[in-house]
Parts: sequence; C-alpha cells; structure tokens
Amino acid sequence: MKLLKDKIVQNGKVLSENVLKVDSFLNHQIDPVLMQEIGNEFGARFKNAGITKILTIESSGIAPSMFAGITLGVPVVFARKRKSLTLSDNLFTSQVHSFTKGETNDISVSKDFINSEDTVLIIDDFLANGQAVLGLLDVLKQAEAKTAGVGIVIEKGFQPGGSLIREQGIRVESLANIKSLANGKVEFFEEATIR
Amino acid sequence: MKLLKDKIVQNGKVLSENVLKVDSFLNHQIDPVLMQEIGNEFGARFKNAGITKILTIESSGIAPSMFAGITLGVPVVFARKRKSLTLSDNLFTSQVHSFTKGETNDISVSKDFINSEDTVLIIDDFLANGQAVLGLLDVLKQAEAKTAGVGIVIEKGFQPGGSLIREQGIRVESLANIKSLANGKVEFFEEATIR
Repeated sequence: MKLLKDKIVQNGKVLSENVLKVDSFLNHQIDPVLMQEIGNEFGARFKNAGITKILTIESSGIAPSMFAGITLGVPVVFARKRKSLTLSDNLFTSQVHSFTKGETNDISVSKDFINSEDTVLIIDDFLANGQAVLGLLDVLKQAEAKTAGVGIVIEKGFQPGGSLIREQGIRVESLANIKSLANGKVEFFEEATIR
Repeated sequence: MKLLKDKIVQNGKVLSENVLKVDSFLNHQIDPVLMQEIGNEFGARFKNAGITKILTIESSGIAPSMFAGITLGVPVVFARKRKSLTLSDNLFTSQVHSFTKGETNDISVSKDFINSEDTVLIIDDFLANGQAVLGLLDVLKQAEAKTAGVGIVIEKGFQPGGSLIREQGIRVESLANIKSLANGKVEFFEEATIR
C-alpha cells in the first residue's frame, strides 16, 4: 500500500535493525485519514471472505479495525490484555508474550462476542514475532470460529511471525512488509497483492 | 444523543446502582457505525472551537476519537497507561486512579505530540469519578496547551467527575448523561445541548 509505505519512509524512525518507531501516525499519535485508507484497503482485500466479525487487540489495533469494520459492515471485538473487574468469567483466554515490553499478558475475549457461527478477520498494527496473532488465533480455536485471515498494517518480514502463521495455511495480508531496517533505512518486500 | 441513549437502553446491562456494562457496543465489542455517529456528533459540537488535536486514553477512548478526528480533520493522540520500552523519556506523565479496576496507573504522552500551540479536545468513553479526564487535563497543563473541552460518550452524572471538571470552567459535552441506575433501570438527565 503505497500511501502507507510513503508515510513509513517519511515519518517512521529506525531505532535499530529490529525497531521501527511509528508513534507519530500509528501507535501513539494516530492519523485518522491514514487509518481510514488502511481500513478501506483491508475491506477491499477481504470483502469476499464472508467476514462476520473483526478481532483485534488493545490498543493500537483498534484504530485501523474501526474503519475496516465500517467498510465490511461488521462489529469489532478487541481482546483485553488482562481481566477487568467488570467482565465476568465468561471468557476465552490465552497468553501473549511481548518481546518489546519484555512481559507476558493474559488476553481475554468474552464468549458473548465470538462463537462458532463467526468468520473472523484478525487485524493488528504490527506483525513481528507473531505472538499477539497466535494468541488471537488460539481464542478463535477455542470459540470454534472460522478464521478468514489476518490483516496487518506493518509486518517486519525479517522476523518469524509471518512465516509461523502462513505455515498454518492462514492468509496474511500485510499492507507494508519490511525486508530490512539495516543501516537506518527501511527496505520493503515487493507486494504479493497488487491493487 | 438519541441513537446512543436508545442503544444504552436496549443493550446496556445495569449490574448495580453504580455499574453500567456496555461491552456489547462500546468497550469490548464495538459498533463502528455507532462510533461514526458519535464522532460526527463530537465534531458538530466542537467544530468552531479551533481544535488542532484530540487527546484520549487507551483503550476505549480510541474508537470514538478516530471518527471525531476524521470529522474535525485533526490527529488523535492516545495517552498510554504505562511506559512502553520503545518510548523515550520525552514524556508528560500523570497519575490516574481507576475505581473500577482498583488500581493507579501512570499515564504518559510524548512531548512530541502535544505542545503550547495546540487547542485540544479530550475524548473518553466514560465519565464517572473523573480521574482519567483530570489526568489528561494535567498533561495539557504541563504542555501549556489550550483545552477546548471534553467530549464524553457516557457520563454517570450521579458521580462527581462531571462537576469536578465543569467547576474548573471547562466545557463538558456528554452524549448520554445518566441520572440514575436505581432498580436496574437507566434514567437520563435531559440534554443541555439539543440537536
């Protein structure tokens, strides 16, 4: 997705060979117009997949999911990173390790909102080691829901997450797939899906 | 806002005289179409306030803020509830006590994204004891930014937060203001702003 890649090149900050900081438009300050374009792009790529629900994870997955929800005409469910006292025990839970934050969180989704009738699109802001998406896939498995695929804003294709998930036969659509962050420069893979 | 009040009456669950659960459309599963209407409503109410930025707090403030950001044509910044290792020390911080969760969190906003040139609209999903909004106002004070006002999806008007903030001379627009949750029934205050 050219608009997104241009934004990454212009406003992303390469902090190391592994870390790209995009907190000026994606995960601290958010550019709503870009999110709308991203949501439309996910909608276009998955419009024939029979999706009934979008599943994401707090917090940075919520913004792009909202606009995909508008385009696809379906509700968005976000997994919480730990139990809230106002949620009951009626939960699917899984564990997600964050290498960035150096911690493991329980994630939870109410059984009220995902079930075996659902065909679900998972959306997240980043795909690196794949832990968050694997946790969400585990939730869908517990719910006996169908997985339509995974929509990722920025994949770090030089890290193992994308392969781990695609090897399971799951469709992964990344709007920008980074090949390398070496020498302070962002290099992208060619897009598999051209629009 | 009639659409929102109808949704609260139809889908909200009164768990006690103080607790209204709206996790089927606002803070776990999210209805994107309702969020879009809410964003448009905030946009209409604050369109002449010279807003340059929206400030909210993760996670449930993000969805309505996105659509307000589209309508007002401004970026959205969300305060994080604790430091992320990928953020630098270049932060405004404050403390927010959550009575629901029984815990106190540091909130932080990068100094890169709010400054003295900004006129800021604060948006959040709930206003009850007002702790989150007071924390965000503290951030704006540290940034020497101008506060345009506060947009709240659901105010629990029988709790002290709304008064605490309005007493400071700050404009608070609540799209649904709850007078009482007694006897398992949601009763609203009359709207001050009619559209």
